[in-house]
Amino acid sequence: MKNRLLILMLAAFLAAPIFSQTNQDKIVEDFESSSVNQQGKEFPKVNSEGRVRVRIEAPEANKVQLDIGGVKYDLEKSEDGVWIGESAPQDEGFHYYQLNIDGASVPDPGSKYYYGAGRWGSGIEIPASDDEFFELKDVPHGSVSENIYYSNITKNWRRNFVYTPPGYFENADKNYPVLYLQHGSYEDETGWSSQGHTNLILDNLIASGDAEPMIIVMDNGYAYKPEDLENAGENRPRSSFEEVLIQEVIPQIDEKFRTIPNRENRAIAGLSMGASQTMSIIMNNLNHFAYYGGFSGTANFPGNEDLDPEEFLNGAFSDAEEVNEKIKVLWLGLGTKEAEVFFKTVGKFRDMLDKQDIEYTYYESPGTAHEWHTWRRSLYQYAQLLFD
Amino acid sequence: MKNRLLILMLAAFLAAPIFSQTNQDKIVEDFESSSVNQQGKEFPKVNSEGRVRVRIEAPEANKVQLDIGGVKYDLEKSEDGVWIGESAPQDEGFHYYQLNIDGASVPDPGSKYYYGAGRWGSGIEIPASDDEFFELKDVPHGSVSENIYYSNITKNWRRNFVYTPPGYFENADKNYPVLYLQHGSYEDETGWSSQGHTNLILDNLIASGDAEPMIIVMDNGYAYKPEDLENAGENRPRSSFEEVLIQEVIPQIDEKFRTIPNRENRAIAGLSMGASQTMSIIMNNLNHFAYYGGFSGTANFPGNEDLDPEEFLNGAFSDAEEVNEKIKVLWLGLGTKEAEVFFKTVGKFRDMLDKQDIEYTYYESPGTAHEWHTWRRSLYQYAQLLFD
Repeated sequence: MKNRLLILMLAAFLAAPIFSQTNQDKIVEDFESSSVNQQGKEFPKVNSEGRVRVRIEAPEANKVQLDIGGVKYDLEKSEDGVWIGESAPQDEGFHYYQLNIDGASVPDPGSKYYYGAGRWGSGIEIPASDDEFFELKDVPHGSVSENIYYSNITKNWRRNFVYTPPGYFENADKNYPVLYLQHGSYEDETGWSSQGHTNLILDNLIASGDAEPMIIVMDNGYAYKPEDLENAGENRPRSSFEEVLIQEVIPQIDEKFRTIPNRENRAIAGLSMGASQTMSIIMNNLNHFAYYGGFSGTANFPGNEDLDPEEFLNGAFSDAEEVNEKIKVLWLGLGTKEAEVFFKTVGKFRDMLDKQDIEYTYYESPGTAHEWHTWRRSLYQYAQLLFD
Repeated sequence: MKNRLLILMLAAFLAAPIFSQTNQDKIVEDFESSSVNQQGKEFPKVNSEGRVRVRIEAPEANKVQLDIGGVKYDLEKSEDGVWIGESAPQDEGFHYYQLNIDGASVPDPGSKYYYGAGRWGSGIEIPASDDEFFELKDVPHGSVSENIYYSNITKNWRRNFVYTPPGYFENADKNYPVLYLQHGSYEDETGWSSQGHTNLILDNLIASGDAEPMIIVMDNGYAYKPEDLENAGENRPRSSFEEVLIQEVIPQIDEKFRTIPNRENRAIAGLSMGASQTMSIIMNNLNHFAYYGGFSGTANFPGNEDLDPEEFLNGAFSDAEEVNEKIKVLWLGLGTKEAEVFFKTVGKFRDMLDKQDIEYTYYESPGTAHEWHTWRRSLYQYAQLLFD
């Protein structure tokens, strides 16, 4: 009994997400500069435990903090006006973070900047055991093109990034299937080709023969009509991304790039908000797509109710036979450390699929939360199943 | 090299207009959000005088400054912990800047970020009377592709950005001339397609028929061999960019893209350090290029001596007849507010050309200094003369 209590207490202690400064004496001193630092910058650094150490000169400051993973860590000031300090161990993979200098939240001048959490800000990479799958290797490399276009639906200029596989430019007579790949909430069209490393993931998969050469289109899921913006008031307006994608983006991509313009050679996927959006889009447009990937999200988010296939998405999953025939791959993924709401909503959706006998693939990314390493791994898994 | 940096820094310092806070009562209150703010951010703002107003919450700070154009302006703190303040009027065009919070130099969380001055940091755009030439208009748009390659000369991965003109992707049988376009000191391969707006300048020029459709390759002028890095010690190592460009980049571009691979259809240009580099490159490789553009720089920088055509660049300008025949356009440009050292060095170079009867075009950008608006205008002028 005593042993059991001790074990429970130990377990509780080990699981506690709150680390105090008092465990600083245990910090492993093997810090190395982050792989996503600005050229020539020594800090921030990461150690083998996944702690982040930052450093900034702020001789006149009263208080400087590192703000990462929802926790603010006090830095310590040395005599020469330099502040330094570190976080508790972070999950493997990519995280957004910032510095807080006397109450001002600002990017760390040592890191590169990424769009996420609704702003351009600092990012850091905690090395993962499987980083090899998006490493820059001596294999043929595709290109990422920035394309700008005017939308007659939203009445403004928009852009997307398009990955074209190795050989696209040289082989003028080969056509390719297309994956439309969407970002999440408070992110934008830059995420997948920047912190997502879409191009390197695909370059490596294509080189090893584990994925078909494909084009990947990364657009912006926020697409507001002027009238919807006006009527939204305090609320976020309804996005017309489905209209923009179906009526404008796909026709433009099929005209500009050497695609195979049919449903069997068109896939769609997204992360979080993008998973929800793209699930609605494919179910409304089965004549356009034959592959779906939902990374950390489903269209029933954040509901916790059982799903009625006759009701959910206007009965799109009611005819199991049609869904099984039309959707060649229905793919769902989650990180094992994601918040409960994601497991609940994805779980309710899976329950419905199971009851309906609709085939799907389910994947869990070990040890990662609602963050980019989960989604890189999801793309890596999902891309291998496309266009077989 | 060290001397050259010192002179550049001194020149920048001497050119800096020092204004005090005493003229605040005259500030014109017509500030508008900067055109290069992050999405949804109200600050920084710019008024019709070209003043920059910044705002940041830093309730516990002792001193916050706006650092722009080599001058630090004190902000004032309001009761709610928000700091606000403005600069003296700035030149038209694009400027790098930063905030200084209790001694810490950090990016402004309201602006977008650009690479320049050796770091990713804040940028701001002071509207200019001629901004129209790089506006996003309803004309056909080209694309900018990111391409990564391994250099066997520098033994590392490098990348370039490639502008392909409107129609490049759709018209599989048309080949295009190529302009190789280089950044300046402490900048990188991102500058020309970001703050330089190469793509929009060319889209507009091509649409109006004022420039030939062309491909533009923007690579990184810093290219160090491992042994040169080792031997450099404290000094900046010698760049092997000429070797990388001639032996690796041009062959790759000619293989990957539909170029017209001969000297008559190949131009080269650069700004500041890039002007100096590319002048050496074209004179060493007249079999590769027929057009040269030097934006705010020449290969004799920062010398103030008369140039002997028999000596300068190994006598490359000694045979005027050959130079006139081989270089179809020799183009030089400066901003009227640039530091004296640029006028002196470019002046000495022009004196030599005049004495030799070598034909060239000389342009001055009114009211701009050694900054991006000078170089955007230079590209706008220069591109119209290419590949006629």
